[in-house]
Amino acid sequence: MNTIGHIFRLTTFGESHGTAIGGVIDGCPARLELDFDFIDNELRRRKTVQTETASQRQEPDRIEWLSGLLDGVTLGSPVAFMVRNEDAKPEDYEVLKDVYRPSHADFTYEQKYGLRDWRGGGRASARTTLPIVVAGAVAKQVMREKGVEIQAETVFMGDAEQAQREGDTVGGVVECRIMGLPAGLGEPMFGKFSAELAHAMFSLPAVKGFEIGDGFAMARMKGSEANDGFAVKNGKTIVATNHSGGIQGGITNGNDVVFRVAFKPIPSLAKPQQTVNRAGEACEIAISGRHDVCALPRAVVSVEALAALVTVDALMMANMQ
Amino acid sequence: MNTIGHIFRLTTFGESHGTAIGGVIDGCPARLELDFDFIDNELRRRKTVQTETASQRQEPDRIEWLSGLLDGVTLGSPVAFMVRNEDAKPEDYEVLKDVYRPSHADFTYEQKYGLRDWRGGGRASARTTLPIVVAGAVAKQVMREKGVEIQAETVFMGDAEQAQREGDTVGGVVECRIMGLPAGLGEPMFGKFSAELAHAMFSLPAVKGFEIGDGFAMARMKGSEANDGFAVKNGKTIVATNHSGGIQGGITNGNDVVFRVAFKPIPSLAKPQQTVNRAGEACEIAISGRHDVCALPRAVVSVEALAALVTVDALMMANMQ
Amino acid sequence: MNTIGHIFRLTTFGESHGTAIGGVIDGCPARLELDFDFIDNELRRRKTVQTETASQRQEPDRIEWLSGLLDGVTLGSPVAFMVRNEDAKPEDYEVLKDVYRPSHADFTYEQKYGLRDWRGGGRASARTTLPIVVAGAVAKQVMREKGVEIQAETVFMGDAEQAQREGDTVGGVVECRIMGLPAGLGEPMFGKFSAELAHAMFSLPAVKGFEIGDGFAMARMKGSEANDGFAVKNGKTIVATNHSGGIQGGITNGNDVVFRVAFKPIPSLAKPQQTVNRAGEACEIAISGRHDVCALPRAVVSVEALAALVTVDALMMANMQ
Amino acid sequence: MNTIGHIFRLTTFGESHGTAIGGVIDGCPARLELDFDFIDNELRRRKTVQTETASQRQEPDRIEWLSGLLDGVTLGSPVAFMVRNEDAKPEDYEVLKDVYRPSHADFTYEQKYGLRDWRGGGRASARTTLPIVVAGAVAKQVMREKGVEIQAETVFMGDAEQAQREGDTVGGVVECRIMGLPAGLGEPMFGKFSAELAHAMFSLPAVKGFEIGDGFAMARMKGSEANDGFAVKNGKTIVATNHSGGIQGGITNGNDVVFRVAFKPIPSLAKPQQTVNRAGEACEIAISGRHDVCALPRAVVSVEALAALVTVDALMMANMQ
Repeated sequence: MNTIGHIFRLTTFGESHGTAIGGVIDGCPARLELDFDFIDNELRRRKTVQTETASQRQEPDRIEWLSGLLDGVTLGSPVAFMVRNEDAKPEDYEVLKDVYRPSHADFTYEQKYGLRDWRGGGRASARTTLPIVVAGAVAKQVMREKGVEIQAETVFMGDAEQAQREGDTVGGVVECRIMGLPAGLGEPMFGKFSAELAHAMFSLPAVKGFEIGDGFAMARMKGSEANDGFAVKNGKTIVATNHSGGIQGGITNGNDVVFRVAFKPIPSLAKPQQTVNRAGEACEIAISGRHDVCALPRAVVSVEALAALVTVDALMMANMQ
Repeated sequence: MNTIGHIFRLTTFGESHGTAIGGVIDGCPARLELDFDFIDNELRRRKTVQTETASQRQEPDRIEWLSGLLDGVTLGSPVAFMVRNEDAKPEDYEVLKDVYRPSHADFTYEQKYGLRDWRGGGRASARTTLPIVVAGAVAKQVMREKGVEIQAETVFMGDAEQAQREGDTVGGVVECRIMGLPAGLGEPMFGKFSAELAHAMFSLPAVKGFEIGDGFAMARMKGSEANDGFAVKNGKTIVATNHSGGIQGGITNGNDVVFRVAFKPIPSLAKPQQTVNRAGEACEIAISGRHDVCALPRAVVSVEALAALVTVDALMMANMQ
Repeated sequence: MNTIGHIFRLTTFGESHGTAIGGVIDGCPARLELDFDFIDNELRRRKTVQTETASQRQEPDRIEWLSGLLDGVTLGSPVAFMVRNEDAKPEDYEVLKDVYRPSHADFTYEQKYGLRDWRGGGRASARTTLPIVVAGAVAKQVMREKGVEIQAETVFMGDAEQAQREGDTVGGVVECRIMGLPAGLGEPMFGKFSAELAHAMFSLPAVKGFEIGDGFAMARMKGSEANDGFAVKNGKTIVATNHSGGIQGGITNGNDVVFRVAFKPIPSLAKPQQTVNRAGEACEIAISGRHDVCALPRAVVSVEALAALVTVDALMMANMQ
Repeated sequence: MNTIGHIFRLTTFGESHGTAIGGVIDGCPARLELDFDFIDNELRRRKTVQTETASQRQEPDRIEWLSGLLDGVTLGSPVAFMVRNEDAKPEDYEVLKDVYRPSHADFTYEQKYGLRDWRGGGRASARTTLPIVVAGAVAKQVMREKGVEIQAETVFMGDAEQAQREGDTVGGVVECRIMGLPAGLGEPMFGKFSAELAHAMFSLPAVKGFEIGDGFAMARMKGSEANDGFAVKNGKTIVATNHSGGIQGGITNGNDVVFRVAFKPIPSLAKPQQTVNRAGEACEIAISGRHDVCALPRAVVSVEALAALVTVDALMMANMQ
C-alpha cells in the first residue's frame, strides 16, 4: 500500500532517517525527455520556507536516477530514483525513543507494527513527500504535453511568527487549480476524479479536510444557487459557472478543477505537553529539534504533485478505449 | 472502476432504469449467517423520507440473492445480489433525452462515453447507492463480530420544506462515527484509513466535502489546541482528546473515528433553469418527475454503508501478517 | 479474487447449483452493439458434445442481461448478466455431502473455507466457465473491430468411448491460435502476454499444463534450431518462423500467438474409487450422476474465451500512452 | 506492471546496463530480522555456473539496502534495495544498436515503446532476475517461520559443452517442489495457486512451458490413473498419491506442490544468424560478448525465488479472514 495510481503508478519507499528515500514510477510513457532542471526546482520549492517558520535541516536532496532512462529519455521501463538522507542525525531523536509524541504517528505505528522507527518521523515523516514531489514533477511534464497545468497556493495560514515565539505551531488551507483538463476524465463509480483527488490529498501528512468547488459551503446553498448552468460559447457547450469545481458525477466537465485542502498545525511543539511513555507512565515532552512551525510552505508543491499524479493517471485511463 | 476495496471488495452494476441494479461481494468471509431482516431494514432506512422532502418512487426493492450462499450461510465464494428496477418509467425521462440538466452528470457522461443513459440518472443516479447499502449491511455484520459499530446522522440540513415550495432543493452535512475500532488499522502511505474513507465518501453522488476530526477548523487552531495528548486509563495508554478524529498518521489510534461529509443540494429543480440541448441551443428546463428535495435522509445509511466497507477491508488487511 | 483483467475486467459469481451464475464486465468500451446471436451461439458451443462422451444436463442457459446496455448498445457502465441454474438437482448430490471425491476440490475447499457447497462442484464446477464464455464472446466482438481473431481446437484427446464403457474418463490437449495481433502487446516484466495467458488458462478446471510456441520441446532444441530469424517481406520487417509462438520477451512480435493447454481427465468416475469421508473413515465411491467423459469438447470455447479476455485487456493497455 | 503479488508485493526496476537494478518489497511483515548472509548466498547461487557454459561477467552484486530496516529488522514499511551495475560495458553492445537479435526482445520492445535500450538486454535482460532473487530470499525467511521450504533443480539440460564449441546454446527443464504447505492456499477462481505459479514462472526470461504435477502427461492418462485417492494416516485425512502436484481446484491439498518449467535455449549465438537491421535491410549477426550457453544453472534459484514470492503472498492471503 505504498503505491498510488492505476496506470501511471508511483511506489515510494524510505524513512526520514534511513539510508535513502525514493520512488519507482511505473507506467511512465516512453520517449519523454526528462527536464532535470525543472524537477530539481520543484524539489527546491518543497524547501522554500520563510526563515522564521521552517525547520533548519538542510539536506542537499540530490536526486540519483537509478533506472528507466537512456540519455535522459524514458524507456518505458520503471523510472526509479532516490535521495540519500545525508544529513540524518538520529541521535537527535534518541530522547523520543520511548515516549509518544502527541498527535504524531508514534503510537499508531507501534500499535500496527509492534515496533517503530523512532529516528525522526520514520515512514510518517513529512520527508516522505519528497518522492511524491519528484514523481509529480515528471507527471507535470507528461501533463503539459496535453495542455494541462496545475497551480496551488496557500489561501489561509495561521500567524506563524507569533506561534513560533510561543513554542507553538499553526495550520492552514491550500487551494489548488487544475487548468486545461478535457471533459470526460474520471471513472463514474469508485474512481471518481474527485474521489481520487480526495484519496491523494489525505495521503499527505497533517491533512484533515478536503473540499471541491464550493465544498462545505454548498451544504448551505439552495439548488438554484449551487447549480452550474450550461451556456454556448463560440459554438461550444460550456459550463457557465463553477460551483462544482469542474466535476459533475465525479467526471470532469471541462472547467478548472478547484479544490481546497485543510492542514492541521504541525504536532511537534517546543512547548511542553503531557504524554505517556512506552512504560505507560505519564510524562512531559518538549520537542526541540528542527521542526517547521507550519507545513504549508512546503505542502503547496506536494499538493500540486499529487494532483499531477492523479491527473496523468486519469488522462491515461481515458485513452484506453 | 466499479469496484471498491482491496480484500473485502464490492463490485456494483446497474442503471436507475435498466433491468436491475446489484453487486458482487468478493472476499466475504465464509460461514457468516446473513441476517436478511437486518439487510432489508437497512434498505428501508435508505428509503426513510419525510413525505414533504422526498421523491415518491416506491420501488419494492426486493433483494434477490444470486450466489455465494448455502442455506443463508456464506460459502466464501462471491455473494451476488440484485434488485429489479420494477417501477422504472423511462418515458418520464423522454423529455430529458436531448438536454443537459445543470449540475447533473448528463454532459460529463456524454463527453466520456459518447452516449448516455437518459433514463433517469442512469449510472449516475442515487439509485446506485442501493447495492452499496446492501453490501454495507453485510459488512456491518462482519464488523459487529469484532465489536465495531458505525452510526451516522444529519448534523445540518437546509430548510427543505420551504425549498420545496419554491421548487428548489437543499444540501446538508452528515456526521459519522465508527466505534470500537482497534488501534493500528489503515496503511501508512497511500491507503491511510482517512484516505480510504475520503475516497469512499466522494463515491456518493452530490458529495463536495469531507473532513475528519475537527477537520477544516484545525486549519485555524494552534498546535497546542489541536494536539491530542496521551493519558493512562486503567493501566492502558489512551488518547485523551479526539481533535484528530481517531486517526494519526493515517492509522487508527483506538478512539472513535469521526468524520463529516458535505452534500450539495440535489440538482434537479422544479424551478426553470437555463441550459443547452444536444444540438447546442440554449433552452430552459424545469424538472418535474419524482425527485427528492434533499439527499440527506437517504444518504445517512449510505455513508454508514461505505464506512462499513472501508472498515471491514481494513480489519481484514490488519489480519494478514 | 474472482476478477480477471486490468482494464477490461470480468468478475464472475455463482455455484453450479445455486440460484444463478453470471458475471460483471467492467471496462467494456461504450457504443458496442452486442451481437446476442453470436453470444448465444458461443454458449451453445460450450454445450456441443458427442452424445457418448458428455453429461446429459440440459440447462437452457438463457442469458439475462442485467445492466450496462441501452437498446442493446453498451453504455460504458458495467455489463452484468446471469443465467439461472434452472435444471439444478441438488438432491442428486446428497450422497456426496460427506465424502471427498478423489482429485476434486471437495477437500481443498473445505480446508480453505471450513465448509463447502456439496451441491455439484459448487464454485469449483465446470459450470463456472459459463460466464467466462459469455464475457469472452463480448471480448471477441471488441477484438474483431481491431482485426484480431482467435481459434482453438482439440489436438489430442484420449479414447473417450472406450473410457466410458469402463466407467473411466480421459484428458487431452487444446491448441489455440490468436491471429492478427499487432506487435508490442503485453507488459515486459510481470504482465507478459505469455504470463497472462498462462494465468488465464490455469483458471480453467482440470488444466495441468501450458506451453507457448514449441513449448516443452524447445528445452531439447539448440539455439540455432529454436531461434526465429527476421526477414523483410513487402518492405516490412517480419519474424520469419514461429518457434516462439508469437512472443519474445513476453511481448507480441506480430506473428500468430500459438499455445497449448493440457487437461487432465475428469475426476468423476463411474468406476469405484477408494476415498475418505468427513468422519475420517476410509470408504468407496462410485460417481454416477451426469458427468462428461472428457472436458475437451466443452473446453475449446472456454480456452478461446479466456484468450479473448486477455487479448482485449492487452489491446486496451497498449492504447493508454 | 512491474509489480508481482497482492499483499506481499515486489516492484522491480532496472536495466542490465543502467545505473542500478533493484526492487521494493511492499507488505513485508514487520519485526523480521533479515539474514543478510543467506540473501547474499542466494545471489551467489544465481551466479553459480559451470565455467564452460556461463558468461564471464563478474558483477560484484553488492546489495545496498535503502529503506524499511532499523538495525537489520524490518519496520513494516517498504524494503527497498539495489545493486549497482558496476561492470556495465555498454560499448560492447554498440554493434547491436541497429540490428534485431533473433528471438530476443529487441524488436518487440521497439514496437512497444518506439525506442529500446540497446545496452545489453536492457529491461529484458536476465539480469532483471536479480531483484527477484533478493526478494525471494526475504520471502523464504518469512516462509520458513511457517515451516514451508522450496527446492528446485535442473531435471533436463541439453549438452552445453558441445553446443558451446559449435557457437550454439541449449535449453532445459527445472523442477521445483514446495514442501510443508498447509491445505487451503490459493484462490478458487482467478488466483488459483497453480495459476499464480504459472504467471510467475512465465515472468522469467526464456520460459516457454509450465506444468504442474504430472502435467502434460495427464492428457494421456485415464481418470483412474490420474486421480489422487484419499487415505487416513495417523488419524488425519491425506491425499495418498500426488499426480495433481499438490493442488486440486487450484487450492493446495497439503501435499508437496511440484511443477516443472521449460526454458528455451538462450537466443544469443556466436554462430552467424540471418536477421534485419533497423533500416529494414537483411544482414547477418554473430553475437560474441559475454553470454551463457544455458540459462538453467542461474535459473534454478530464480524459479525458487518466484515460487517463494507466490507462496508467501498466498500464506498472507489465507490469514485474512
